[in-house]
Amino acid sequence: MQVLAMTDVIRLAHGSGGEASRSLIAFFVEKYLANPIIEGLEDSAVVRHKGSRIAFTTDSYVVSPIFFPGGDIGSLAINGTVNDLSMVGARPLALTLSLIIEEGFAFKDLERIIDSVSKAARRAGVEIVGGDTKVVERGSADGIFVNTAGLGVVGDGIEISASGARPGDAVIISGSIGDHGVAVLSKREGLGFETIVESDTAPLNRLVEKMLGVTTEIHAMRDPTRGGLATALNEIASRSGVRVTIDESCVPIRPEVQRACDMFGLDPFYVANEGKLVAFVPKAFADRMIEAMRMTDVGKEAAIIGEVEAEDTGLVILNTSVGGQRILSPLSGELLPRIC
Amino acid sequence: MQVLAMTDVIRLAHGSGGEASRSLIAFFVEKYLANPIIEGLEDSAVVRHKGSRIAFTTDSYVVSPIFFPGGDIGSLAINGTVNDLSMVGARPLALTLSLIIEEGFAFKDLERIIDSVSKAARRAGVEIVGGDTKVVERGSADGIFVNTAGLGVVGDGIEISASGARPGDAVIISGSIGDHGVAVLSKREGLGFETIVESDTAPLNRLVEKMLGVTTEIHAMRDPTRGGLATALNEIASRSGVRVTIDESCVPIRPEVQRACDMFGLDPFYVANEGKLVAFVPKAFADRMIEAMRMTDVGKEAAIIGEVEAEDTGLVILNTSVGGQRILSPLSGELLPRIC
Repeated sequence: MQVLAMTDVIRLAHGSGGEASRSLIAFFVEKYLANPIIEGLEDSAVVRHKGSRIAFTTDSYVVSPIFFPGGDIGSLAINGTVNDLSMVGARPLALTLSLIIEEGFAFKDLERIIDSVSKAARRAGVEIVGGDTKVVERGSADGIFVNTAGLGVVGDGIEISASGARPGDAVIISGSIGDHGVAVLSKREGLGFETIVESDTAPLNRLVEKMLGVTTEIHAMRDPTRGGLATALNEIASRSGVRVTIDESCVPIRPEVQRACDMFGLDPFYVANEGKLVAFVPKAFADRMIEAMRMTDVGKEAAIIGEVEAEDTGLVILNTSVGGQRILSPLSGELLPRIC
Repeated sequence: MQVLAMTDVIRLAHGSGGEASRSLIAFFVEKYLANPIIEGLEDSAVVRHKGSRIAFTTDSYVVSPIFFPGGDIGSLAINGTVNDLSMVGARPLALTLSLIIEEGFAFKDLERIIDSVSKAARRAGVEIVGGDTKVVERGSADGIFVNTAGLGVVGDGIEISASGARPGDAVIISGSIGDHGVAVLSKREGLGFETIVESDTAPLNRLVEKMLGVTTEIHAMRDPTRGGLATALNEIASRSGVRVTIDESCVPIRPEVQRACDMFGLDPFYVANEGKLVAFVPKAFADRMIEAMRMTDVGKEAAIIGEVEAEDTGLVILNTSVGGQRILSPLSGELLPRIC
């Protein structure tokens, strides 16, 4: 890794979901936690028990502010964990919910979050089966942090992995990118745009069900959260050992998101999404897949945005709107702290 | 619940594991999250899938200080989740690890914690299969918070529940009480006793395996963490609808723990343990159970400490060392914040 010496400290970039996160995690996994499952670094671990494949995942949420247009830390946590299960093709069975609350946190805000958790769980069709509540002294946390863990079951014949993309695959995005990051950032900065951008936070399990109805031959899938679409594509390209080409003009971006990104000096390819997926499927299935996706409320704007060209060391090439080509690298540094 | 109005705020007592925690959780579970599994409020949820019963649990750890005699936040988190799985008789299959780290946290402390996580997992014979890392700005968290979730499998014929105790059961404790709480508190307060009290943090899965080897007829089991032995006994008594009698003189308490408790004005029955269990088993098995437990390193001081007298509304009666009787009530208020 990029030499984290014993005298060093953890920086915000280590939680960015980009290169610094990746190298920190790789260091600890290799040195202390090595096993074939964690080394896969999938969105969910898949544990075998008797004839079943059980998907298991966790995420902590520290988003600031906790309430933002289109969602809050509660719905974000539920959807995020449902989506991590969905990305390996698992059907969510149950979630847990663990809260770390700062002393003095308003009861009405806590109730609003739990109400949101409940509604998000109902929307995804999954139940909260257990949890934990810790309270720390005033000043020892920033309001509330939420952890969700998820349990799911992978159906027979489904083998989706970040390392499964192969030449001949089409690259599909389920909708517009950058909405979540812009929604949180504009609320945080207290900016009023003429159009309010809402977070796309949503459960993707029913969308994935539809997609698996077209074919179980989905080779790779990711929800492009921290680090954005660029980072998710790079993870898949490098782990699969393929070269991916993306047509910039095919990637849906809302005009108001683009405007906000221009204003903040951000590239929407690196901005977090919380209700989108990118999937790699054989070209032969791509049109039928898009058709099926567009029949769901979260997949209405699904689009083919590129293809896997060849085996390679893992480059992502962007054919730009103006007719050029450039390498789309993974996120380095911390773009937006506490975006999820 | 004890009327938490919309104008109220969350207090430290809501995270104590005592009455305030219980009523807060009961309020949210009933109003927003009701389902038969979460309503059981067991240490682990048990989810059915095909022929299997999958145990699923989570806990967040906010202990302060993060390093204390006998352990640290890393070993505590692993052991705590292994133990929650064990309390429903499940064999742990896999854990996840999620970190919330304050910007500026020393890398060497993080490495020390991950090393401890790794060693604790190896000791329990369980693997970390996934995780998450978030970093928040300086001042937005107190060093590091750790969440672990756990996945396990409940074997055939095992039906252990906090509501399963019944008349004729013996009450067994696996060893001395109060060690963890006193270890953390003495470190936090910077007190040097003539004898250093070490936390009892340890995995209980192999002890439970031994116990299940004697009989699968363990009716109820809990690890008495936050809220201590008194609170765990009250939970079992009230949920099982029985009256429990405990002989104070039979409960193992180290002299140095008793001395520390006297100094701090604490009752060891309410002080947290992190490597102990209390089990309710038919009297006919009690002696053999004790014998098997004493053959393990974490059960060497196992003892019969009481019995279930009759069906009732759920009282716990303490026969005191001086020959009196008193009601042992559950913890109310916050005894020791951030003990786990």
